[in-house]
Amino acid sequence: MELKNDLLLRAAKGETVERTPVWVMRQAGRILPEYRAVRAKLSGFKELVETPELACEVTLQPVDLLGVDAAIIFSDILVIPEAMGLEYQMIKGKGPIFEETIRSEADLSKIHVSHPDELSYVTDAIRLTKKELNGRVPLIGFAGAPWTIFAYMVEGSGSKTFSEARKVLYQQPELAHKVLGMITDSTIAYLRAQVNAGADLIQLFDSWAGILPQEQYEEFSASYIRKIVEQIQDVPTTVFAKGAYRALPLFANMSCNTIGLDWNMDIENAKKVVGTGKTLQGNLDPCLLYSDTKTIEAETKKMLQKFGDHRHIANLGHGVYPDTNPDHVKCFIETIQSFEK
Amino acid sequence: MELKNDLLLRAAKGETVERTPVWVMRQAGRILPEYRAVRAKLSGFKELVETPELACEVTLQPVDLLGVDAAIIFSDILVIPEAMGLEYQMIKGKGPIFEETIRSEADLSKIHVSHPDELSYVTDAIRLTKKELNGRVPLIGFAGAPWTIFAYMVEGSGSKTFSEARKVLYQQPELAHKVLGMITDSTIAYLRAQVNAGADLIQLFDSWAGILPQEQYEEFSASYIRKIVEQIQDVPTTVFAKGAYRALPLFANMSCNTIGLDWNMDIENAKKVVGTGKTLQGNLDPCLLYSDTKTIEAETKKMLQKFGDHRHIANLGHGVYPDTNPDHVKCFIETIQSFEK
Repeated sequence: MELKNDLLLRAAKGETVERTPVWVMRQAGRILPEYRAVRAKLSGFKELVETPELACEVTLQPVDLLGVDAAIIFSDILVIPEAMGLEYQMIKGKGPIFEETIRSEADLSKIHVSHPDELSYVTDAIRLTKKELNGRVPLIGFAGAPWTIFAYMVEGSGSKTFSEARKVLYQQPELAHKVLGMITDSTIAYLRAQVNAGADLIQLFDSWAGILPQEQYEEFSASYIRKIVEQIQDVPTTVFAKGAYRALPLFANMSCNTIGLDWNMDIENAKKVVGTGKTLQGNLDPCLLYSDTKTIEAETKKMLQKFGDHRHIANLGHGVYPDTNPDHVKCFIETIQSFEK
Repeated sequence: MELKNDLLLRAAKGETVERTPVWVMRQAGRILPEYRAVRAKLSGFKELVETPELACEVTLQPVDLLGVDAAIIFSDILVIPEAMGLEYQMIKGKGPIFEETIRSEADLSKIHVSHPDELSYVTDAIRLTKKELNGRVPLIGFAGAPWTIFAYMVEGSGSKTFSEARKVLYQQPELAHKVLGMITDSTIAYLRAQVNAGADLIQLFDSWAGILPQEQYEEFSASYIRKIVEQIQDVPTTVFAKGAYRALPLFANMSCNTIGLDWNMDIENAKKVVGTGKTLQGNLDPCLLYSDTKTIEAETKKMLQKFGDHRHIANLGHGVYPDTNPDHVKCFIETIQSFEK
């Protein structure tokens, strides 16, 4: 199936594009009343993630309603630890909670390297979505970066400091590497299955990148991200590591195509550090969408001008916040799509 | 009362010191069994903060038990919003919760510029502690930076994103400046009262510095920090803005004496950006204290070598985590105190 709009893929590969493509992290989700209507009928978040027809439906919503240049499969990074053996529950107002955690060698008996078949609900959702998209825009697949997944598996929940997870890096580095290796192997197989099912581009989310000191980030995170992007070669790959300012040069030397910038990262500096060999993605402050549309338009243009001629995929610098007015998201998208340099 | 150990103050002012002084953020607190014994008898955290005799007792504990080169008055940054009119409760496992928040101009009627008399329990604690310290080491006073206080007053609790607080910056910048101005005025009066009561050095904590884009950080945070440090001239001042990598040059141009570095900040880069006109404070990874003492010793020495001849006050790069072994904290402290360049 040939893509009618392949701007995202061409931009990721550094090819010439007529205009900057745009999508929005968390575009399928609570900002849309149509999403909330689907969600309201269900027992919980996980039912949505695990039912391919429903995941497909909400994946398509932002394509239909917001006109983005890419869809991203509706799922969660925590499906990997669950497939590996650690079930989680999504608790309202609290986030994910794992009943079991990994804190010692003995806990390794709780987990295994997952097989993509254990996540067939995701690949089924991708297949279905590709069919429904019918070539309109590319479909993005994704996974969490191993360090971020590890952080949840050790901590057992979200945390401001993830000090339990970080404690393992200091006290039991070998255990950490074992678990990170298992997550990495699970993730590679999972992402390959996503590509086989039709994902056109893969993004890795390293949500907790920012809490590691540089040396630890290199040892316990970047090295595993490198392995994954080296193993995904059939489609372009994107690495988005929130808060990892000092890791940009590491990513610049990996085989990924695109590097995501969070809203706090300086565009000029990123261009300098990363060089012209990669595409940059981002990075409008998601809170800026709380402004009036005039401000959104002006600031979006300012952002585009800062990226200038550099290879660029427009996005926010973080997932869109749930209480954002969808019309403001639309304003952001349309400003990019009608921008003339 | 002359200080027997004034290393901290001399290091802050850039004077020659025989060795690097050291203290630890959150040194008075849950790491010490002696603290937990005091705390266990009380109704809650706030009783400790609001009872000068008890606050004094736990402030002295790390001086007696860990041998740090400075005491820091046991208190909380949230006493300011409370004195201004917004009461908070400290909920176990949840952190601070405010019943009332500031989201509109109408909410301004809930708050006023606080008078130091409304925080006499803090100044009383300082007076008592100075007496009990009897000149052994300096006593540090502190407050939250206005942006961080504002974030809690708007959000009403901790948050991963503080998107409600950040929304106000975009939607109601004038309201934000009004509230920030009131916090700043309250804080200046409060810190002056701390100095009058005997505080030997003042530290400002900008815990949520890292979530603001650079331009907003300049407008809504740094400008107010600047006002405060300009108004506190009788004692040295320290600014610690967690995650505010790009703000270091701003602080370098303020009248503060010391700039705190978090554990992720690169020492070499900080030295370069800040220059020799300021003292740097920090910045060992608090999680490193989970290692064995041999590693702690080696890494602490490595840190000291990186700071080299630069004006330096040793500390962690964040508050010590509650489950840290006090002997490991001691190892960190003693390594610094016995280090020969």
